[in-house]
Amino acid sequence: MSQGNKDVINGVNVTGLQETVANLKNDPSLAHCEFRVTNQWVNGDENRSQTCDFYAAGAEQTHKKTFHFQAGEPGLLEGHDEGANPVEYLLSALSGCMTTTIAYYAALNGHVIKKMESTYKGDLNLQGILGLDPNVRPGYQKIRVEFKIQTDAPAEELEKYYPFSPVYDVVSKSVPVEVSIETYQ
Amino acid sequence: MSQGNKDVINGVNVTGLQETVANLKNDPSLAHCEFRVTNQWVNGDENRSQTCDFYAAGAEQTHKKTFHFQAGEPGLLEGHDEGANPVEYLLSALSGCMTTTIAYYAALNGHVIKKMESTYKGDLNLQGILGLDPNVRPGYQKIRVEFKIQTDAPAEELEKYYPFSPVYDVVSKSVPVEVSIETYQ
Repeated sequence: MSQGNKDVINGVNVTGLQETVANLKNDPSLAHCEFRVTNQWVNGDENRSQTCDFYAAGAEQTHKKTFHFQAGEPGLLEGHDEGANPVEYLLSALSGCMTTTIAYYAALNGHVIKKMESTYKGDLNLQGILGLDPNVRPGYQKIRVEFKIQTDAPAEELEKYYPFSPVYDVVSKSVPVEVSIETYQ
Repeated sequence: MSQGNKDVINGVNVTGLQETVANLKNDPSLAHCEFRVTNQWVNGDENRSQTCDFYAAGAEQTHKKTFHFQAGEPGLLEGHDEGANPVEYLLSALSGCMTTTIAYYAALNGHVIKKMESTYKGDLNLQGILGLDPNVRPGYQKIRVEFKIQTDAPAEELEKYYPFSPVYDVVSKSVPVEVSIETYQ
């Protein structure tokens, strides 16, 4: 089950991950993280966001580089299609998180993954976004996820892993969002 | 309140948006959309996703180009930091969606926005992700959002707009996620 190095499975440093687990058991205060994004509106449908720093392991941390995100809307939604739209970013976030969680948990449990592909489809009704029908929510009504995974692990085993995905947890269970708006002329 | 063209406010084609509203009132079946993302795991913490097509206005639609997303994890989380991590993508999705929703609704209500910036901070505890404490959730425990907006509209007016953001709605209220996993050797 090794990949060159006996401590690495699925490209995940299992020994390192186990050390992190031991450290957190020793000092749970190290488990707190804060992730951050800033956003600047450009015009109309276009806005840009980025992330460069975060808090983890009891200290401020910096990414190797700043990561940029360009958001837009297609012409049908009065945009110029200069970037994926935010509901597509949400599906991407979900996809990245479920995939990484399955790869990491499989590694921790000694299961080798050779290939992993997945699709995400979300149903949305514009009547909700545009406030035309109070019975229609603005957000996705349902998200359907399909994984195809080449692995020695049975599907039932992998099904135990993805509920530990933070984005799956947030999207399927909700999170309090505290919003403040300051205006100036 | 115009920006060169009397129908455009905040870079949003208000007349076009009003026509969309009229069309949807006429034929609500046009309001159904399906957005899609596919994901391929690369190795360890690294995976890539993309979106190119979607369903809207009663037909298959294609973006101007395919949009790509590269996800990773920082070294602290046993990754190689080749992309933002999925929980940062989630904050980016939230930022893009709340921003666009405020710009569009302000335009529909005749309010000019000159500048709009916002920050997103999410608290996360690794004990939840790693399954060390069943009382700690894997996902964000709270997300804090701060907007600074240069506009003629009062903050109380703008506070009516962001609840129509689909990503805000999903994240703050949850959505059913249906997952299927198919494995092969």
